[in-house]
Amino acid sequence: MKRNVFYISDGTAITAEALGHAVLSQFNIEPEFHTIPFVDNDSKAMDVCHKIDTAYTQTGVKPIVFYSIVSPEIKNLINNSQGLCLDVVQSLIAPLQQELNISPVASAKRRPYGLTENNMIKYDARIAAIDYTLAHDDGISLRNLELAQVILLGVSRAGKTPTSLYLALQFGVYAVNYPFVSDDMNNLKIPPAILPYKNKLFGLTIDPERLSAIRQERKGNSNYASLRQCRMEVSEVEALYRKLQIPYLNTTNYSVEEITARLMETMSLQRQR
Amino acid sequence: MKRNVFYISDGTAITAEALGHAVLSQFNIEPEFHTIPFVDNDSKAMDVCHKIDTAYTQTGVKPIVFYSIVSPEIKNLINNSQGLCLDVVQSLIAPLQQELNISPVASAKRRPYGLTENNMIKYDARIAAIDYTLAHDDGISLRNLELAQVILLGVSRAGKTPTSLYLALQFGVYAVNYPFVSDDMNNLKIPPAILPYKNKLFGLTIDPERLSAIRQERKGNSNYASLRQCRMEVSEVEALYRKLQIPYLNTTNYSVEEITARLMETMSLQRQR
Repeated sequence: MKRNVFYISDGTAITAEALGHAVLSQFNIEPEFHTIPFVDNDSKAMDVCHKIDTAYTQTGVKPIVFYSIVSPEIKNLINNSQGLCLDVVQSLIAPLQQELNISPVASAKRRPYGLTENNMIKYDARIAAIDYTLAHDDGISLRNLELAQVILLGVSRAGKTPTSLYLALQFGVYAVNYPFVSDDMNNLKIPPAILPYKNKLFGLTIDPERLSAIRQERKGNSNYASLRQCRMEVSEVEALYRKLQIPYLNTTNYSVEEITARLMETMSLQRQR
Repeated sequence: MKRNVFYISDGTAITAEALGHAVLSQFNIEPEFHTIPFVDNDSKAMDVCHKIDTAYTQTGVKPIVFYSIVSPEIKNLINNSQGLCLDVVQSLIAPLQQELNISPVASAKRRPYGLTENNMIKYDARIAAIDYTLAHDDGISLRNLELAQVILLGVSRAGKTPTSLYLALQFGVYAVNYPFVSDDMNNLKIPPAILPYKNKLFGLTIDPERLSAIRQERKGNSNYASLRQCRMEVSEVEALYRKLQIPYLNTTNYSVEEITARLMETMSLQRQR
């Protein structure tokens, strides 16, 4: 069943999207998504309503609208459209208000990540984490490891770089990643520069079949991408993890978000916001 | 007013965090955050309840608990804790069920980003975007620009790299970024390799005072970080944007999320999920 789904926000719309996706995943429909951020005045709200109403007219079924908007006036405009309009935060406001015994500040600009004076330090910390992580991607540098919060290990294409970047961008984590390459396999060991930081090590692994498929995309018909080579590398690296008791995760069936969340849980890394 | 806030999920807890932050930003409290992902069995749920109850005993005020959990049994366990327990999706299920006239699939593993067969292509596309964007960070390469979806311009430390990485990681966008450096300033122009792709250009700018502060952190007491140099570079680059009618954004008061969302809106880039 096809459905138009609108995510509307006076901010980035990231919250409305995340929640809408979580809710819709419980229903067996085929959504067609439309995300419209920064709807912060009447004129933009009217444009949005027009889009919702047009989608309704064209399809004959009500579009589903998830919105996260503070201004009561703009909310009213959206609610007057012909979509099924769902306020993603409203139902949580009332019980919180009762428990906290204070009123919500409806006029407040909600800026959970914003570069206000209050979280200037957090913003700078985040940029510093990105700088550090990029400088330590793919074994480029093994200096300043005392600053690392985690050192990722794994064969080429196991997911180290996306995980490292997500850790830095989303959570301000200083992440190093080090690749085991084909030449290492005869005598696999942790580089001496890393050894003093054994408690920061976290290994990634991946099913050889999936690894081979990913490598085929990059270098088709190469030894690098052959299933035999992938099996050997994965087997050697997993044996090393076990021997040195390095915690590790098979990334085959996980998204970058899931890998990151599991890594942070295992390594007891705090999410900084 | 201090408050313990728990984000609990049977997944990554990213949705519960995003929504909880949006709601709490409307109340003037000092939250102390605890995020607990992957609560997917009774034993983990009991541990969580113990943490909530301990926080209540220690502080004398009810912790606030935002949760996103599918299993009714685990929900029940959480609800029996002594926190104020708020289900972040539940209030949206009922109106959706009525409109769609189908029942929610409570047993479904919710995996909006998961590497299931259905979105294997999306996962690979995301990794490809990260590879492309890293290879084209900071002007490293100006080849294969026909594949770029956006080419970011700006002076050093204007926010190009974090924005590019966020575009690739979060939205699978192929992003190039090119820095204008001090030596370019006498005769500022767009490199010939980029000129054919003028419609992909997006400029970043930043207040010279903020730029100088950021550069001081990296190279204190340098010409590079001097306010005079920063004023000159920003002024030259903004003049170029205006002359060539390149759309641009001042990043000074925006988070990476906001910069990215505004850029995607201006450049009409679709959010792929």
